[in-house]
Amino acid sequence: MLTDFGLSDHYVGVVHAVLEKHAPGVPRIDLDHLVPPGDIWEASFQLRCAWPHLPAGCVVMAVVDPGVGTKRRALALALGRRFLIAPDNGIPACIGVANQTVEIDWRKMGLPEPSKTFHGRDVFAPAAAWIARGEELTSLGDEVEPDLLVACPLPDPEPLTSGFQATVISVDRFGNLATNLPASSVNGDVSAVWSPEHSARRVQTYSDASGDEVVLLEGSAGVLELAVNGGSAAMATGLRRGDAVRVTTTIDEGGD
Amino acid sequence: MLTDFGLSDHYVGVVHAVLEKHAPGVPRIDLDHLVPPGDIWEASFQLRCAWPHLPAGCVVMAVVDPGVGTKRRALALALGRRFLIAPDNGIPACIGVANQTVEIDWRKMGLPEPSKTFHGRDVFAPAAAWIARGEELTSLGDEVEPDLLVACPLPDPEPLTSGFQATVISVDRFGNLATNLPASSVNGDVSAVWSPEHSARRVQTYSDASGDEVVLLEGSAGVLELAVNGGSAAMATGLRRGDAVRVTTTIDEGGD
Amino acid sequence: MLTDFGLSDHYVGVVHAVLEKHAPGVPRIDLDHLVPPGDIWEASFQLRCAWPHLPAGCVVMAVVDPGVGTKRRALALALGRRFLIAPDNGIPACIGVANQTVEIDWRKMGLPEPSKTFHGRDVFAPAAAWIARGEELTSLGDEVEPDLLVACPLPDPEPLTSGFQATVISVDRFGNLATNLPASSVNGDVSAVWSPEHSARRVQTYSDASGDEVVLLEGSAGVLELAVNGGSAAMATGLRRGDAVRVTTTIDEGGD
Repeated sequence: MLTDFGLSDHYVGVVHAVLEKHAPGVPRIDLDHLVPPGDIWEASFQLRCAWPHLPAGCVVMAVVDPGVGTKRRALALALGRRFLIAPDNGIPACIGVANQTVEIDWRKMGLPEPSKTFHGRDVFAPAAAWIARGEELTSLGDEVEPDLLVACPLPDPEPLTSGFQATVISVDRFGNLATNLPASSVNGDVSAVWSPEHSARRVQTYSDASGDEVVLLEGSAGVLELAVNGGSAAMATGLRRGDAVRVTTTIDEGGD
Repeated sequence: MLTDFGLSDHYVGVVHAVLEKHAPGVPRIDLDHLVPPGDIWEASFQLRCAWPHLPAGCVVMAVVDPGVGTKRRALALALGRRFLIAPDNGIPACIGVANQTVEIDWRKMGLPEPSKTFHGRDVFAPAAAWIARGEELTSLGDEVEPDLLVACPLPDPEPLTSGFQATVISVDRFGNLATNLPASSVNGDVSAVWSPEHSARRVQTYSDASGDEVVLLEGSAGVLELAVNGGSAAMATGLRRGDAVRVTTTIDEGGD
Repeated sequence: MLTDFGLSDHYVGVVHAVLEKHAPGVPRIDLDHLVPPGDIWEASFQLRCAWPHLPAGCVVMAVVDPGVGTKRRALALALGRRFLIAPDNGIPACIGVANQTVEIDWRKMGLPEPSKTFHGRDVFAPAAAWIARGEELTSLGDEVEPDLLVACPLPDPEPLTSGFQATVISVDRFGNLATNLPASSVNGDVSAVWSPEHSARRVQTYSDASGDEVVLLEGSAGVLELAVNGGSAAMATGLRRGDAVRVTTTIDEGGD
């Protein structure tokens, strides 16, 4: 489960209860429930980071759903050997091209009429549980064209003459600034510049940094991030999500 | 589990460990651990919202217990096909009339003498685990009269000539203001008034609202709530828990 | 699991996923993920409190790891009938003398090369899962001398003529101030003094306090703590972690 339900209400617990009722005994994992309310960008980033590490056969229910109660589609997708249940608001398009995509139809599933405000509980959870216990995707609804999904909100890095214009796409608890640039895109003598006076050299590990130096290194999601060893790069740089960082390489290799 | 233990200490984890020791393999669900310290009102509301969605046979351990270490009673109740373990401080009385109620007696259970400050770990968790693994309620202690419980702290709505005086009883993460008035209590052309200058019309879904309009709609718990589509009704109205909202209907139907 | 990963990113969820992949069906418990970033002291305290209540055979993965990516050792220890997986940064030394200690070697385990920044996911989680599913400690790496571990950061109380110089070692959600002094160390007429004008008498339970009196009582971890019934001792006293509290007894008994 990946949601913006927060942890100070019964919402997450009730979805767990519905999942347990519809798919008893299936293990459940909470990926993140503190996505800022309605923040599709952040949800997409967290999902993209987690996705490659999830077990084969798992079903991810990603419900950050500012359009709940409107005509936005509810989708269920098979991607590789995993499944995703999510509203069609950009999140599904962020993790790749699906093998199969259906639009969830609570009438076809025989569910009671859902509330207008909590489809996580009333639609997405039953759908996720059905797949988790082995039902076919088509038992949830009819197939749709996978190329007509709402586009992923996460920006791509833009190539420059000798590097890339990257974007800060997430700030984690430690103040590390993740960019959208895969670490494998740049080789050689790499540095990041975010203002005329400020730049960071690329290192291998936090401990290569001296003192409170801001450094550029490959984070756990495989993208380059700005970090301060034992400190917060967000505080040190003042950078925020959406800000631009120019990543340059003197050897100018374009990637693998 | 529903507690005010928070998530920044080992308290919740240790209760999970005790439950696993006493009832190995039984699935556990965290409903909410961020109830404000000692806030029986909020705990009662969250429990009431979650209750109808919980699986048959489940045991809810609701420990918001400012009276820990005093003579307040520890109770175990059967209500319909579910069970509740909680101190007798108003929470148990909020979810209905029990089929059977016992006062938990750690001596009768053969438990070691509990600490003075953490009955969640030392008394309530073992009691919940015993029920979860199939023991009878009477194995925990002697039966008590269910009509002598401490009263539920949640106020009821008060009937008016053409509607109800409702009360805001909870503010969720999204800033939605839940009242204590069931949506089914009022029909027709309904509106809510909370000051001489401010009112909201009833709509079906968030997207029926225009711009940052405050609207009244049926929330996921079946009660009327004030909401702003993509925004916070709490911020927009300045209303807080306990504040009054007058809900009026021009057709003046008193209920369903 | 006990970490400083926080709850607003995918980190905890991904570790759960890795554990599920390597040890399917083994129950997992979250002890605490809101340890302040890199705070080994707090992690050690939380672990020490939880340890005696954990089930026999359980494997604790305690990853507060400011030295990730450096040469600090990754350890796996057997202590009594439980296991601990943690970096060698003081946390392992806080819970006692191990029966057996090995240094985790991802090469010996045949794992893919780990990232530089997320050994919780890439090294500690697979190691914990191997032990949880019954592998020998020596399958993770070679044995090391248990007396060469980095020392526990938690201070011990210092004996005085008639009592102890104790230290506040943790402040919980309720504002209770836990000291490092076992309640069994002092008997008789005990009081705590933290400034020339401020002291607290020892009581048995919160309700023995009158009004907003600060009292000294045995907390759930068996150590003396300062508390205010229904209030916050941290706010009432201004004391913080690391501050000194003199605990005196008029009968002057040195221990249990």
